[in-house]
Amino acid sequence: MSITKNEIKLIKSLGQKKFRQQEELFLVEGVKGIREFLDSEFELYQLFATEAIFDVETKLISSKDLQRISGLKSPNTALAIFRIPKPKPEKESSLILALDDVRDPGNLGTIIRLCDWFGIETLVCSLETVDCYNPKVVQASMGSLTRVQIKYTDLEDYLKQSELETFGTFMDGSSIYSEALPKKGIIVMGNEANGISPNIERLIHKKIGIPRFGNLKATESLNVATATAIVLSAVKGQ
Amino acid sequence: MSITKNEIKLIKSLGQKKFRQQEELFLVEGVKGIREFLDSEFELYQLFATEAIFDVETKLISSKDLQRISGLKSPNTALAIFRIPKPKPEKESSLILALDDVRDPGNLGTIIRLCDWFGIETLVCSLETVDCYNPKVVQASMGSLTRVQIKYTDLEDYLKQSELETFGTFMDGSSIYSEALPKKGIIVMGNEANGISPNIERLIHKKIGIPRFGNLKATESLNVATATAIVLSAVKGQ
Repeated sequence: MSITKNEIKLIKSLGQKKFRQQEELFLVEGVKGIREFLDSEFELYQLFATEAIFDVETKLISSKDLQRISGLKSPNTALAIFRIPKPKPEKESSLILALDDVRDPGNLGTIIRLCDWFGIETLVCSLETVDCYNPKVVQASMGSLTRVQIKYTDLEDYLKQSELETFGTFMDGSSIYSEALPKKGIIVMGNEANGISPNIERLIHKKIGIPRFGNLKATESLNVATATAIVLSAVKGQ
Repeated sequence: MSITKNEIKLIKSLGQKKFRQQEELFLVEGVKGIREFLDSEFELYQLFATEAIFDVETKLISSKDLQRISGLKSPNTALAIFRIPKPKPEKESSLILALDDVRDPGNLGTIIRLCDWFGIETLVCSLETVDCYNPKVVQASMGSLTRVQIKYTDLEDYLKQSELETFGTFMDGSSIYSEALPKKGIIVMGNEANGISPNIERLIHKKIGIPRFGNLKATESLNVATATAIVLSAVKGQ
Protein backbone atom coordinates (compact mmCIF):
# COMPACT_ATOMS: atom_id res chain seq x y z
CA MET A 1 0.00 0.00 0.00
CA SER A 2 1.17 3.45 -0.69
CA ILE A 3 1.30 6.05 2.00
CA THR A 4 -1.26 8.85 1.61
CA LYS A 5 -0.59 12.56 1.44
CA ASN A 6 -2.56 13.11 4.63
CA GLU A 7 -0.52 10.52 6.48
CA ILE A 8 2.71 12.18 5.33
CA LYS A 9 1.35 15.57 6.38
CA LEU A 10 0.38 14.30 9.84
CA ILE A 11 3.73 12.60 10.42
CA LYS A 12 5.73 15.64 9.32
CA SER A 13 3.63 17.90 11.54
CA LEU A 14 4.39 15.73 14.59
CA GLY A 15 7.99 16.96 14.43
CA GLN A 16 6.60 20.14 15.99
CA LYS A 17 5.46 20.46 19.59
CA LYS A 18 2.45 22.58 18.64
CA PHE A 19 1.00 19.82 16.45
CA ARG A 20 1.91 17.04 18.90
CA GLN A 21 -0.09 18.85 21.56
CA GLN A 22 -2.97 19.59 19.19
CA GLU A 23 -3.20 16.00 17.90
CA GLU A 24 -2.07 14.37 21.18
CA LEU A 25 0.16 12.09 19.13
CA PHE A 26 3.92 11.50 18.88
CA LEU A 27 6.34 9.45 16.78
CA VAL A 28 8.48 6.45 17.65
CA GLU A 29 10.97 5.09 15.11
CA GLY A 30 12.79 1.78 14.91
CA VAL A 31 11.84 -1.77 15.79
CA LYS A 32 13.30 -1.88 19.30
CA GLY A 33 11.72 1.39 20.44
CA ILE A 34 8.31 0.58 18.96
CA ARG A 35 8.35 -2.84 20.64
CA GLU A 36 8.92 -1.23 24.04
CA PHE A 37 6.04 1.18 23.52
CA LEU A 38 3.75 -1.65 22.32
CA ASP A 39 4.63 -3.59 25.48
CA SER A 40 3.77 -0.59 27.67
CA GLU A 41 0.58 1.25 28.60
CA PHE A 42 0.95 3.58 25.62
CA GLU A 43 -1.79 3.33 23.01
CA LEU A 44 -0.87 2.81 19.36
CA TYR A 45 -2.50 5.13 16.84
CA GLN A 46 -0.93 3.91 13.60
CA LEU A 47 2.01 1.74 12.55
CA PHE A 48 3.93 1.84 9.29
CA ALA A 49 6.54 -0.79 8.46
CA THR A 50 8.38 -2.30 5.52
CA GLU A 51 7.77 -5.81 6.92
CA ALA A 52 4.99 -7.37 9.00
CA ILE A 53 7.07 -7.93 12.12
CA PHE A 54 4.65 -6.76 14.80
CA ASP A 55 1.53 -8.54 16.04
CA VAL A 56 -0.63 -5.47 15.50
CA GLU A 57 -2.33 -3.89 12.52
CA THR A 58 0.42 -2.61 10.27
CA LYS A 59 0.35 -0.56 7.11
CA LEU A 60 3.04 -2.09 4.93
CA ILE A 61 4.97 0.52 2.98
CA SER A 62 8.01 0.58 0.71
CA SER A 63 11.49 1.50 1.95
CA LYS A 64 11.22 4.57 -0.22
CA ASP A 65 8.04 5.67 1.58
CA LEU A 66 9.62 4.99 4.96
CA GLN A 67 12.54 7.17 3.91
CA ARG A 68 10.05 9.94 3.10
CA ILE A 69 8.37 9.95 6.51
CA SER A 70 11.39 9.14 8.66
CA GLY A 71 13.35 11.75 10.58
CA LEU A 72 16.38 9.45 10.67
CA LYS A 73 19.24 9.28 8.19
CA SER A 74 18.95 5.49 8.14
CA PRO A 75 15.34 4.57 8.91
CA ASN A 76 14.93 1.22 10.63
CA THR A 77 12.00 -0.85 9.27
CA ALA A 78 9.16 0.89 11.08
CA LEU A 79 7.64 4.16 12.24
CA ALA A 80 4.76 4.33 14.70
CA ILE A 81 2.41 7.01 15.90
CA PHE A 82 1.37 6.66 19.56
CA ARG A 83 -1.13 8.64 21.60
CA ILE A 84 0.27 11.03 24.22
CA PRO A 85 -1.19 9.72 27.51
CA LYS A 86 -3.22 11.87 29.85
CA PRO A 87 -1.16 13.07 32.83
CA LYS A 88 -1.51 10.70 35.77
CA PRO A 89 -1.91 11.86 39.36
CA GLU A 90 1.59 12.25 40.76
CA LYS A 91 2.97 9.27 42.64
CA GLU A 92 4.03 9.68 46.25
CA SER A 93 7.66 9.47 45.22
CA SER A 94 10.38 9.48 47.77
CA LEU A 95 12.90 11.12 45.46
CA ILE A 96 11.98 13.45 42.59
CA LEU A 97 14.23 14.91 39.92
CA ALA A 98 13.33 18.36 38.61
CA LEU A 99 14.74 20.11 35.53
CA ASP A 100 14.97 23.89 35.27
CA ASP A 101 14.92 24.57 31.51
CA VAL A 102 16.99 21.74 30.07
CA ARG A 103 16.91 22.52 26.35
CA ASP A 104 18.89 19.82 24.55
CA PRO A 105 16.84 16.77 23.43
CA GLY A 106 19.84 14.43 23.81
CA ASN A 107 20.37 15.61 27.39
CA LEU A 108 16.70 15.10 28.31
CA GLY A 109 16.73 11.65 26.68
CA THR A 110 19.82 10.65 28.68
CA ILE A 111 18.28 12.01 31.88
CA ILE A 112 15.08 9.98 31.32
CA ARG A 113 17.24 6.85 30.90
CA LEU A 114 19.05 7.73 34.13
CA CYS A 115 15.76 8.10 36.02
CA ASP A 116 14.77 4.66 34.77
CA TRP A 117 18.15 3.16 35.79
CA PHE A 118 18.18 4.74 39.25
CA GLY A 119 14.51 4.12 39.99
CA ILE A 120 13.43 7.77 40.01
CA GLU A 121 9.73 7.46 39.20
CA THR A 122 8.88 11.12 38.80
CA LEU A 123 10.64 13.66 36.63
CA VAL A 124 9.32 17.20 36.91
CA CYS A 125 10.16 19.54 34.02
CA SER A 126 9.83 23.32 33.88
CA LEU A 127 7.63 24.56 31.04
CA GLU A 128 10.72 25.72 29.11
CA THR A 129 12.31 22.27 29.24
CA VAL A 130 12.37 20.54 25.84
CA ASP A 131 9.24 18.44 25.16
CA CYS A 132 9.73 14.78 26.10
CA TYR A 133 7.75 13.71 23.00
CA ASN A 134 10.20 15.51 20.71
CA PRO A 135 11.38 12.75 18.29
CA LYS A 136 15.03 13.23 19.33
CA VAL A 137 14.13 12.83 23.00
CA VAL A 138 12.11 9.69 22.24
CA GLN A 139 15.11 8.34 20.28
CA ALA A 140 17.61 9.15 23.02
CA SER A 141 15.51 7.93 25.93
CA MET A 142 14.76 4.57 24.30
CA GLY A 143 12.12 2.59 26.14
CA SER A 144 12.76 4.49 29.38
CA LEU A 145 10.06 6.97 28.41
CA THR A 146 7.51 4.18 28.98
CA ARG A 147 8.65 3.73 32.60
CA VAL A 148 9.27 7.24 33.95
CA GLN A 149 6.42 9.59 34.79
CA ILE A 150 7.12 13.05 33.39
CA LYS A 151 5.24 16.12 34.49
CA TYR A 152 5.54 19.58 32.87
CA THR A 153 4.64 22.39 35.21
CA ASP A 154 5.59 25.85 36.41
CA LEU A 155 8.63 24.79 38.44
CA GLU A 156 8.57 27.81 40.73
CA ASP A 157 4.94 27.16 41.76
CA TYR A 158 5.64 23.44 42.07
CA LEU A 159 8.55 23.96 44.46
CA LYS A 160 6.62 26.55 46.47
CA GLN A 161 3.73 24.13 46.97
CA SER A 162 5.86 21.09 47.74
CA GLU A 163 6.60 20.11 51.32
CA LEU A 164 9.69 18.14 50.30
CA GLU A 165 13.20 19.38 50.94
CA THR A 166 14.85 20.80 47.78
CA PHE A 167 18.43 20.23 46.67
CA GLY A 168 20.04 22.11 43.79
CA THR A 169 23.29 21.47 41.98
CA PHE A 170 25.66 24.43 41.87
CA MET A 171 29.34 24.88 41.03
CA ASP A 172 29.94 26.07 44.61
CA GLY A 173 27.57 23.67 46.37
CA SER A 174 28.84 21.44 49.16
CA SER A 175 30.44 18.21 47.96
CA ILE A 176 28.11 15.34 47.12
CA TYR A 177 30.85 13.05 48.48
CA SER A 178 30.80 14.46 52.02
CA GLU A 179 27.24 15.78 52.27
CA ALA A 180 24.44 13.54 53.53
CA LEU A 181 22.23 13.20 50.49
CA PRO A 182 18.45 12.88 50.57
CA LYS A 183 16.52 9.62 50.34
CA LYS A 184 13.45 11.82 50.08
CA GLY A 185 13.31 15.20 48.44
CA ILE A 186 13.56 17.07 45.15
CA ILE A 187 16.86 17.38 43.31
CA VAL A 188 16.96 20.26 40.82
CA MET A 189 19.31 20.37 37.82
CA GLY A 190 19.75 23.58 35.81
CA ASN A 191 19.88 24.79 32.24
CA GLU A 192 22.89 23.87 30.02
CA ALA A 193 24.22 27.42 29.74
CA ASN A 194 22.89 29.24 32.79
CA GLY A 195 22.43 26.60 35.47
CA ILE A 196 19.58 27.05 37.93
CA SER A 197 17.72 30.33 37.48
CA PRO A 198 17.59 32.92 40.31
CA ASN A 199 13.86 32.50 41.02
CA ILE A 200 14.37 28.75 41.47
CA GLU A 201 17.62 29.21 43.42
CA ARG A 202 15.66 31.10 46.09
CA LEU A 203 13.55 28.00 46.70
CA ILE A 204 16.50 25.61 47.15
CA HIS A 205 17.12 24.49 50.73
CA LYS A 206 20.52 22.95 50.17
CA LYS A 207 23.15 23.58 47.50
CA ILE A 208 25.15 20.57 46.46
CA GLY A 209 27.97 20.26 43.93
CA ILE A 210 30.37 17.90 42.22
CA PRO A 211 33.93 18.77 43.23
CA ARG A 212 36.55 19.05 40.50
CA PHE A 213 39.63 16.90 41.03
CA GLY A 214 41.57 17.92 37.94
CA ASN A 215 43.08 21.16 36.72
CA LEU A 216 41.37 23.89 38.71
CA LYS A 217 41.96 26.67 36.21
CA ALA A 218 39.94 24.83 33.58
CA THR A 219 36.72 26.66 32.85
CA GLU A 220 34.38 23.99 31.57
CA SER A 221 31.65 22.57 33.68
CA LEU A 222 30.16 19.14 33.29
CA ASN A 223 27.33 18.60 30.85
CA VAL A 224 23.93 18.52 32.65
CA ALA A 225 23.25 14.88 31.71
CA THR A 226 26.68 13.83 32.97
CA ALA A 227 26.19 15.84 36.17
CA THR A 228 22.78 14.21 36.68
CA ALA A 229 24.38 10.76 36.33
CA ILE A 230 26.96 11.60 38.99
CA VAL A 231 24.47 13.14 41.42
CA LEU A 232 21.90 10.32 41.14
CA SER A 233 24.65 7.74 41.52
CA ALA A 234 25.94 9.48 44.65
CA VAL A 235 22.43 9.69 46.15
CA LYS A 236 21.56 6.06 45.41
CA GLY A 237 24.98 4.67 46.27
CA GLN A 238 25.29 6.34 49.66
CA MET B 1 41.93 38.16 1.72
CA SER B 2 40.27 35.32 -0.03
CA ILE B 3 40.86 31.76 0.98
CA THR B 4 42.87 29.72 -1.55
CA LYS B 5 41.86 26.49 -3.20
CA ASN B 6 44.76 24.69 -1.55
CA GLU B 7 43.73 25.91 1.87
CA ILE B 8 40.18 24.69 1.30
CA LYS B 9 41.51 21.35 0.09
CA LEU B 10 43.75 20.94 3.14
CA ILE B 11 40.98 21.86 5.59
CA LYS B 12 38.46 19.52 3.98
CA SER B 13 41.00 16.68 3.98
CA LEU B 14 41.54 17.09 7.75
CA GLY B 15 38.03 15.78 8.29
CA GLN B 16 39.58 12.36 7.58
CA LYS B 17 41.88 10.51 9.96
CA LYS B 18 44.17 9.36 7.13
CA PHE B 19 44.99 12.94 6.14
CA ARG B 20 45.26 14.15 9.75
CA GLN B 21 47.88 11.50 10.35
CA GLN B 22 49.67 12.23 7.09
CA GLU B 23 49.76 16.00 7.63
CA GLU B 24 50.01 15.79 11.45
CA LEU B 25 47.40 18.54 11.64
CA PHE B 26 43.88 18.85 13.03
CA LEU B 27 41.07 21.42 13.14
CA VAL B 28 39.65 23.46 15.99
CA GLU B 29 36.56 25.60 15.45
CA GLY B 30 35.11 28.44 17.47
CA VAL B 31 36.60 31.25 19.52
CA LYS B 32 36.49 29.56 22.92
CA GLY B 33 38.08 26.32 21.77
CA ILE B 34 40.80 28.03 19.75
CA ARG B 35 41.66 30.24 22.73
CA GLU B 36 42.18 27.19 24.92
CA PHE B 37 44.46 25.57 22.36
CA LEU B 38 46.43 28.83 21.91
CA ASP B 39 46.89 28.97 25.69
CA SER B 40 48.20 25.40 25.75
CA GLU B 41 51.33 23.64 24.53
CA PHE B 42 49.72 22.93 21.16
CA GLU B 43 51.39 24.62 18.20
CA LEU B 44 49.29 26.71 15.82
CA TYR B 45 49.71 25.99 12.12
CA GLN B 46 47.22 28.43 10.59
CA LEU B 47 44.32 30.56 11.79
CA PHE B 48 41.37 31.82 9.77
CA ALA B 49 38.88 34.29 11.25
CA THR B 50 36.26 36.81 10.23
CA GLU B 51 37.64 39.31 12.79
CA ALA B 52 41.11 39.98 14.22
CA ILE B 53 40.30 38.80 17.74
CA PHE B 54 43.39 36.73 18.53
CA ASP B 55 46.91 38.02 19.28
CA VAL B 56 48.44 35.77 16.64
CA GLU B 57 48.86 35.94 12.87
CA THR B 58 45.37 35.59 11.43
CA LYS B 59 44.15 35.28 7.89
CA LEU B 60 41.01 37.41 7.77
CA ILE B 61 38.30 35.85 5.65
CA SER B 62 34.66 36.57 4.85
CA SER B 63 31.77 34.87 6.64
CA LYS B 64 30.99 33.21 3.35
CA ASP B 65 34.48 31.70 3.17
CA LEU B 66 34.25 30.57 6.80
CA GLN B 67 30.97 28.88 5.95
CA ARG B 68 32.75 27.04 3.11
CA ILE B 69 35.52 25.60 5.28
CA SER B 70 33.54 25.01 8.47
CA GLY B 71 32.16 21.65 9.49
CA LEU B 72 29.57 23.35 11.71
CA LYS B 73 26.05 24.40 10.78
CA SER B 74 26.63 27.78 12.41
CA PRO B 75 30.35 28.56 12.19
CA ASN B 76 31.63 30.74 15.01
CA THR B 77 34.08 33.46 13.85
CA ALA B 78 37.21 31.35 13.51
CA LEU B 79 38.74 28.05 12.38
CA ALA B 80 42.27 27.04 13.28
CA ILE B 81 44.65 24.33 12.18
CA PHE B 82 46.93 23.03 14.94
CA ARG B 83 49.78 20.53 14.80
CA ILE B 84 49.19 17.10 16.30
CA PRO B 85 51.81 16.86 19.07
CA LYS B 86 54.35 14.04 19.23
CA PRO B 87 53.38 11.42 21.82
CA LYS B 88 54.95 12.17 25.21
CA PRO B 89 56.48 9.52 27.43
CA GLU B 90 53.68 8.20 29.61
CA LYS B 91 53.32 9.84 33.02
CA GLU B 92 53.55 7.69 36.11
CA SER B 93 49.84 8.01 36.66
CA SER B 94 48.18 6.56 39.67
CA LEU B 95 44.89 5.97 37.91
CA ILE B 96 44.53 5.34 34.19
CA LEU B 97 41.35 5.11 32.12
CA ALA B 98 41.42 2.75 29.13
CA LEU B 99 38.86 2.52 26.31
CA ASP B 100 38.21 -0.69 24.43
CA ASP B 101 36.88 0.46 21.04
CA VAL B 102 34.69 3.44 21.92
CA ARG B 103 33.39 4.50 18.51
CA ASP B 104 31.17 7.52 19.01
CA PRO B 105 32.94 10.92 18.79
CA GLY B 106 30.51 12.52 21.24
CA ASN B 107 31.16 9.77 23.78
CA LEU B 108 34.94 10.12 23.48
CA GLY B 109 34.66 13.91 23.78
CA THR B 110 32.58 13.58 26.95
CA ILE B 111 35.02 11.02 28.38
CA ILE B 112 37.99 13.36 27.74
CA ARG B 113 36.11 16.12 29.62
CA LEU B 114 35.47 13.68 32.47
CA CYS B 115 39.18 12.76 32.68
CA ASP B 116 39.97 16.47 32.91
CA TRP B 117 37.34 17.00 35.63
CA PHE B 118 38.37 14.01 37.72
CA GLY B 119 42.10 14.53 37.31
CA ILE B 120 42.78 11.41 35.24
CA GLU B 121 45.97 12.41 33.42
CA THR B 122 46.29 9.45 31.10
CA LEU B 123 43.65 8.06 28.77
CA VAL B 124 44.67 4.93 26.88
CA CYS B 125 42.66 4.14 23.74
CA SER B 126 42.57 0.92 21.75
CA LEU B 127 43.51 1.36 18.09
CA GLU B 128 39.84 0.95 17.08
CA THR B 129 38.71 3.78 19.35
CA VAL B 130 37.62 6.89 17.41
CA ASP B 131 40.49 9.34 16.75
CA CYS B 132 40.70 12.07 19.39
CA TYR B 133 41.55 14.64 16.67
CA ASN B 134 38.30 13.91 14.84
CA PRO B 135 36.60 17.36 14.58
CA LYS B 136 33.53 16.12 16.47
CA VAL B 137 35.68 14.83 19.33
CA VAL B 138 37.58 18.14 19.47
CA GLN B 139 34.25 19.96 19.56
CA ALA B 140 32.79 17.74 22.28
CA SER B 141 35.87 17.65 24.49
CA MET B 142 36.29 21.44 24.47
CA GLY B 143 39.60 22.54 25.95
CA SER B 144 39.97 19.32 27.92
CA LEU B 145 41.92 17.83 25.03
CA THR B 146 44.74 20.23 25.90
CA ARG B 147 44.99 18.86 29.43
CA VAL B 148 44.56 15.09 29.12
CA GLN B 149 47.31 12.88 27.69
CA ILE B 150 45.84 10.42 25.19
CA LYS B 151 47.71 7.39 23.99
CA TYR B 152 46.55 5.06 21.17
CA THR B 153 47.96 1.59 21.45
CA ASP B 154 47.18 -2.11 21.13
CA LEU B 155 45.17 -2.40 24.34
CA GLU B 156 45.76 -6.12 24.77
CA ASP B 157 49.56 -5.68 24.64
CA TYR B 158 49.35 -2.63 26.86
CA LEU B 159 47.43 -4.45 29.59
CA LYS B 160 49.70 -7.51 29.34
CA GLN B 161 52.78 -5.35 29.86
CA SER B 162 51.33 -3.21 32.64
CA GLU B 163 51.99 -4.10 36.26
CA LEU B 164 48.94 -2.18 37.44
CA GLU B 165 45.79 -3.88 38.62
CA THR B 166 43.03 -3.82 35.98
CA PHE B 167 39.34 -3.11 36.60
CA GLY B 168 36.67 -3.57 33.96
CA THR B 169 33.05 -2.43 33.91
CA PHE B 170 30.54 -5.23 33.26
CA MET B 171 26.78 -5.56 33.69
CA ASP B 172 27.36 -8.33 36.25
CA GLY B 173 30.41 -6.81 37.97
CA SER B 174 30.41 -6.27 41.72
CA SER B 175 28.78 -3.03 42.80
CA ILE B 176 30.92 0.10 42.66
CA TYR B 177 29.07 1.22 45.78
CA SER B 178 30.20 -1.66 47.98
CA GLU B 179 33.49 -2.62 46.31
CA ALA B 180 36.76 -0.99 47.40
CA LEU B 181 37.79 0.95 44.31
CA PRO B 182 41.37 1.53 43.19
CA LYS B 183 43.37 4.69 43.86
CA LYS B 184 45.94 3.15 41.54
CA GLY B 185 45.19 0.94 38.57
CA ILE B 186 43.63 0.82 35.13
CA ILE B 187 39.87 1.11 34.64
CA VAL B 188 38.65 -0.29 31.32
CA MET B 189 35.40 0.82 29.65
CA GLY B 190 34.00 -1.11 26.69
CA ASN B 191 32.50 -0.51 23.28
CA GLU B 192 29.00 1.05 22.95
CA ALA B 193 27.33 -2.07 21.54
CA ASN B 194 29.49 -4.97 22.70
CA GLY B 195 31.10 -3.86 25.94
CA ILE B 196 34.58 -5.13 26.74
CA SER B 197 35.86 -7.64 24.16
CA PRO B 198 36.72 -11.23 25.22
CA ASN B 199 40.49 -10.85 24.68
CA ILE B 200 40.53 -7.81 26.98
CA GLU B 201 38.14 -9.42 29.50
CA ARG B 202 40.73 -12.16 30.08
CA LEU B 203 43.20 -9.51 31.30
CA ILE B 204 40.82 -7.90 33.80
CA HIS B 205 41.60 -8.63 37.46
CA LYS B 206 38.37 -7.33 38.91
CA LYS B 207 34.93 -6.89 37.37
CA ILE B 208 32.97 -3.92 38.63
CA GLY B 209 29.48 -2.73 37.71
CA ILE B 210 26.86 -0.07 38.28
CA PRO B 211 23.82 -1.63 39.94
CA ARG B 212 20.39 -0.85 38.52
CA PHE B 213 17.89 0.53 41.02
CA GLY B 214 14.94 0.89 38.71
CA ASN B 215 12.79 -1.52 36.76
CA LEU B 216 14.83 -4.70 36.48
CA LYS B 217 13.14 -6.04 33.35
CA ALA B 218 14.29 -3.00 31.39
CA THR B 219 16.85 -3.99 28.82
CA GLU B 220 18.82 -0.82 28.19
CA SER B 221 22.25 -0.32 29.62
CA LEU B 222 23.80 3.03 30.37
CA ASN B 223 25.63 4.90 27.64
CA VAL B 224 29.43 4.43 27.96
CA ALA B 225 30.07 8.12 28.64
CA THR B 226 27.41 8.15 31.38
CA ALA B 227 28.81 4.95 32.86
CA THR B 228 32.32 6.45 32.83
CA ALA B 229 31.02 9.50 34.71
CA ILE B 230 29.46 7.28 37.39
CA VAL B 231 32.51 5.02 37.77
CA LEU B 232 35.07 7.87 37.95
CA SER B 233 32.87 9.73 40.43
CA ALA B 234 32.62 6.60 42.62
CA VAL B 235 36.39 6.05 42.49
CA LYS B 236 37.27 9.66 43.29
CA GLY B 237 34.52 10.18 45.83
CA GLN B 238 35.25 7.11 47.92
